Amino acid sequence: MNSKRVENFSAVLSIPGDGGMPPPPPPMEVHRVCMPPHRTTVQKLRQRLGEIFFPDNPLHMFKDQSRVKRLLLSLQFFFPVLEWGPNYSLRLLRSDVVSGLTIASLAIPQGISYAKLANLPPIIGLYSSFVPPLVYSLLGSSRHLAVGPVSIASLVMGTMLTEGVPHGGDNHVLYLKMAFTATFVAGIFQASLGFFRLGFIIDFLSKATLLGFMAGAAVIVSLQQLKGLLGIVHFTTKMQIIPVLSSVFHHTDEWSWQTIVMGMVFLILLLSARQISVWKPKYFWISAAAPLTSVIISTCIVALLGPKAHKIDTIGHLPKGLNPPSSNMLYFHGPYLGLAIKTGIITGILSLTEGIAVGRTFAALKNYQVDGNKEMMAIGLMNMAGSCSSCYVTTGSFSRSAVNYNAGAQTVVSNIIMATTVLITLLFLMPLFHYTPNLILAAIIITAVIGLIDYQAAFRLWKVDKLDFLACICSFFGVLFISVPLGLAIAVGVSVFKILLNVTRPNTCVLGNIPGTQVYQSLSRYRTAIRIPSFLVLSVEAPIYFANSTYLQERLLRWVREEEERAAANKESAIKCVVIDMSAVTAIDTSGIDTIRELKRVLERQSLKLVLANPLGNVMEKLHKSNVLEELGGDGLYLTVAEAVADLSMLKPGGYEP
Amino acid sequence: MNSKRVENFSAVLSIPGDGGMPPPPPPMEVHRVCMPPHRTTVQKLRQRLGEIFFPDNPLHMFKDQSRVKRLLLSLQFFFPVLEWGPNYSLRLLRSDVVSGLTIASLAIPQGISYAKLANLPPIIGLYSSFVPPLVYSLLGSSRHLAVGPVSIASLVMGTMLTEGVPHGGDNHVLYLKMAFTATFVAGIFQASLGFFRLGFIIDFLSKATLLGFMAGAAVIVSLQQLKGLLGIVHFTTKMQIIPVLSSVFHHTDEWSWQTIVMGMVFLILLLSARQISVWKPKYFWISAAAPLTSVIISTCIVALLGPKAHKIDTIGHLPKGLNPPSSNMLYFHGPYLGLAIKTGIITGILSLTEGIAVGRTFAALKNYQVDGNKEMMAIGLMNMAGSCSSCYVTTGSFSRSAVNYNAGAQTVVSNIIMATTVLITLLFLMPLFHYTPNLILAAIIITAVIGLIDYQAAFRLWKVDKLDFLACICSFFGVLFISVPLGLAIAVGVSVFKILLNVTRPNTCVLGNIPGTQVYQSLSRYRTAIRIPSFLVLSVEAPIYFANSTYLQERLLRWVREEEERAAANKESAIKCVVIDMSAVTAIDTSGIDTIRELKRVLERQSLKLVLANPLGNVMEKLHKSNVLEELGGDGLYLTVAEAVADLSMLKPGGYEP
Repeated sequence: MNSKRVENFSAVLSIPGDGGMPPPPPPMEVHRVCMPPHRTTVQKLRQRLGEIFFPDNPLHMFKDQSRVKRLLLSLQFFFPVLEWGPNYSLRLLRSDVVSGLTIASLAIPQGISYAKLANLPPIIGLYSSFVPPLVYSLLGSSRHLAVGPVSIASLVMGTMLTEGVPHGGDNHVLYLKMAFTATFVAGIFQASLGFFRLGFIIDFLSKATLLGFMAGAAVIVSLQQLKGLLGIVHFTTKMQIIPVLSSVFHHTDEWSWQTIVMGMVFLILLLSARQISVWKPKYFWISAAAPLTSVIISTCIVALLGPKAHKIDTIGHLPKGLNPPSSNMLYFHGPYLGLAIKTGIITGILSLTEGIAVGRTFAALKNYQVDGNKEMMAIGLMNMAGSCSSCYVTTGSFSRSAVNYNAGAQTVVSNIIMATTVLITLLFLMPLFHYTPNLILAAIIITAVIGLIDYQAAFRLWKVDKLDFLACICSFFGVLFISVPLGLAIAVGVSVFKILLNVTRPNTCVLGNIPGTQVYQSLSRYRTAIRIPSFLVLSVEAPIYFANSTYLQERLLRWVREEEERAAANKESAIKCVVIDMSAVTAIDTSGIDTIRELKRVLERQSLKLVLANPLGNVMEKLHKSNVLEELGGDGLYLTVAEAVADLSMLKPGGYEP
Repeated sequence: MNSKRVENFSAVLSIPGDGGMPPPPPPMEVHRVCMPPHRTTVQKLRQRLGEIFFPDNPLHMFKDQSRVKRLLLSLQFFFPVLEWGPNYSLRLLRSDVVSGLTIASLAIPQGISYAKLANLPPIIGLYSSFVPPLVYSLLGSSRHLAVGPVSIASLVMGTMLTEGVPHGGDNHVLYLKMAFTATFVAGIFQASLGFFRLGFIIDFLSKATLLGFMAGAAVIVSLQQLKGLLGIVHFTTKMQIIPVLSSVFHHTDEWSWQTIVMGMVFLILLLSARQISVWKPKYFWISAAAPLTSVIISTCIVALLGPKAHKIDTIGHLPKGLNPPSSNMLYFHGPYLGLAIKTGIITGILSLTEGIAVGRTFAALKNYQVDGNKEMMAIGLMNMAGSCSSCYVTTGSFSRSAVNYNAGAQTVVSNIIMATTVLITLLFLMPLFHYTPNLILAAIIITAVIGLIDYQAAFRLWKVDKLDFLACICSFFGVLFISVPLGLAIAVGVSVFKILLNVTRPNTCVLGNIPGTQVYQSLSRYRTAIRIPSFLVLSVEAPIYFANSTYLQERLLRWVREEEERAAANKESAIKCVVIDMSAVTAIDTSGIDTIRELKRVLERQSLKLVLANPLGNVMEKLHKSNVLEELGGDGLYLTVAEAVADLSMLKPGGYEP
């Protein structure tokens, strides 16, 4: 461990090999491996908690500010409207009005359709497109999020409540109560995730899981819409694919040809409009205007046909007027409370995931930041407010937000414009929907959800990461054949299993020196890398934990055995020293420390020396605290593999003799 | 990326710093980052499965052998007795007889006591010390394991079955049936874990978890023995600490002073004998002989006192004779089957964990290998055989194996000697136990389990790893206050949570160059490390997964922001290039790849260049497959941080301008 022994270095390190090899690297100094700076347990705990709950350091802008400025900043922090409000201009307003009207034309038919998807009265969908967007425009920090009911959350709420609440009698009131309560629970849950800064929980729904889940849900939803498109009256309330398909084909006598013809025509029109926007994004307004246009045309047709179209099911009477208060309908006791809580939490997580992902996507496109935890509080408060004003679960919708963005929305004012348009509809235009056929709602839902089936993304998953693809497939089939919560649970399980698998069976490899450098890399990957005689350099690419310590011990000893056999077969000099490159060992626990100790003992019994190279800070700390460093001895720890090899070759020119 | 630009290198890299700095490193060649060798999906899957199920490559000894030799080797593989049998000598037999008799003197009183701990008739404990050791001696690969009933498995079986099977009436037969069925299930489970090479599942019970669990179980068991030591007749069948303590103090009228005096005397004797062996290991025979001696003495005392000692509860009549067959008592249907399966699996896992750990410990001391999966099959088959011959769950006992090892056991023949001694006892000596007082069994159990409370090890956990300590404490209190399965589940949950926490919130740090080397290390840890102007070198110490990709993106951007603020405050040149050292990023998934892509886009918008250094093999492969490498461009990937810094400083002497 001393730089005076440097003189005869290159002689010792001369490696037998091909003649064209570059000259050996220049003499090398040996550096001490440092401990991380000392911190007390409290300091460490504080830093750890800071990283867990405040990774973005949300208060950094308050630093070094006057008291008044701080007050202003905190008001702006809680009400982002105060940040952009003062700079709001007529030019911005013009853009926002255009985009607000555009998303309103989409929100009204979608609101009615999604409410039907959730088995709720259509009017609830319109109520939900009025209050929540207004609340969000005060609290939300995304400028492009178009708030309202969304397909996935509606579907999940519809499924879970329909399967749990008994049918018949007065139960539609119970169902409504349950829906509002679930919305309230969802809001509370979302707001507390944000408040307690536990937003990272939604990260466990990986993109792969969501991809499969959304595709599965889209298939189920589309098939369920066959009820409306074929005119079937008796349809299952279950959500698995088998009962849905059997409902479709067991009631062929209920199929109505008028409904089928009209439904197919409009479905093809809507799908074509959607396809045009996919091919040419600048014609986004075609797909944005198509739903409202279809509703208007189909309503006119049915109204004109009159009694001839009696087989075509219509929405019927809708009450006029503003959202009635519903806080008296929240249901906080009784046998169905558990169901409401479960439904609330699952729809809450799913709608949160969609809202945050959509917000982040468009924020990234326009280069501004969306604070996840703050967004969660905004979405949560908006749902809590919604549950008291006859709204069900809402969030930022991906399709409407994309239209909003393309239509040139600049701020959340576009949401206010949308809410105002919905308000006018609620106050004056409700009778116009009397003759709107249900089949058009089914066609709108199918067109909306069909885009969720992204088979190209699934193919990319397959190409890049097979286990991500497995998680995707599991959630797809789980949702199709079992149920939404269980399908999601299975997919999260697969994702966590993948993490554990990587920890339980980490990669290990033999390293060699890249000639002319001090770099050691995997021999199987770098063909130019060469073995150093008498040394076996191993790399462990994972933390050493209880879950892999037995495996690693066996695997490393197997490498030693195999290398010894190889050296003997090739008549090379026997291994005398095993160097473990710890650069990728990101953590160690007490079982891992025991493994290192045990490994040292076993190797010593085979007259081999164990050397560790480049342990990371926290690993170093634990090695020190458990006295392993002392047991390794003065020449058992080096800053780099190159320094270890150079120093140990020099110390004992004939190799290491224990 | 070209070595001709090397001439003006040192001029560019001259870093403002103290005058005493060593000269800059010599010119540097830039090396290509290689892809790992191409393998098909099938090859990768095969290798992965090989690592999961056959990490130790158990068939390596069959390679390059003739057919006859292979047959012989596989026979030896399944029956290790064939391996050591031919070399067995009189000298070895002498050692084995001594150690076999020693452990028999311990096994007989412990067998009776542990059976009582499991609420089984005492004779079952002796039966279990006869058949299983014989089976193990054929199949087992450990030379020092002393097989028989153990305290933990007995305790857990007793608890779970007593709480599940209703009391009174003919239910002691049901209880026996359940015990044998649970044993059979445990055996099947253990054997299949071994057969399907799923042995790594027991690794999830980390040492820290087991430490807490065993201490908790020892406390409960010791307190339960107060029943015997105080002579209480009405005692709870529950296992939580609160009902046990209330049983003790609610029945003070049943305390019997004769029992208390005699119990305390023998308990003190036994504990002193144990303590002597702890202090001076060469007197191990004192603690080994103490239980049998105490049984003999106490039995004599009770027999001599006759009716005067009627208040001292004794074992009473025990049937003579060999193990009766019990395969007709296995219970494969009916309401309690679920309980039997649950009990079997939990006792199976626990006894397996103890057996494997004990086997490995003594194998390591004598430098031979114990194949975990093979051991599991041996222990499993031994329990299946046991369940058909009136035995309950058995495994390798830690205390008796230690005595066996200290008494000089050389092979499993010591188990055969022990079984023979138990056989003689069963055939001829059973009436002698008639007057054996129950209090002596309680004292033996307390002495055996008290050693499981290892507070020093718990203190070491606290010192080295706070989260391991938390897992330990959770399993301790979980077992004490809730129940054995739930306590274990909580502790496993804490252990897995710890893994996930490390993945969800990984460490990141800013690196600096150690002058005179090409090594980059954490600035906070190495005081000599210096920043390279215009560069920000960041290290990520974890795989980049869905669970941390959002966090990492925010955290890395926060580092960039903080470094920019710092550079501006110190009037240093602004950052132009962010280098991410990927050496410790052991894996990446599709979410992680999106994060890298997103990071590059965000940094580019801030006119910063993103460069990756030293991605590992599988990370490199995924970056390639997802086309991120092409997006990064020719100068976006380097073998080392040093090469990246050197090459990029040279390319644009004024720094990088995108």
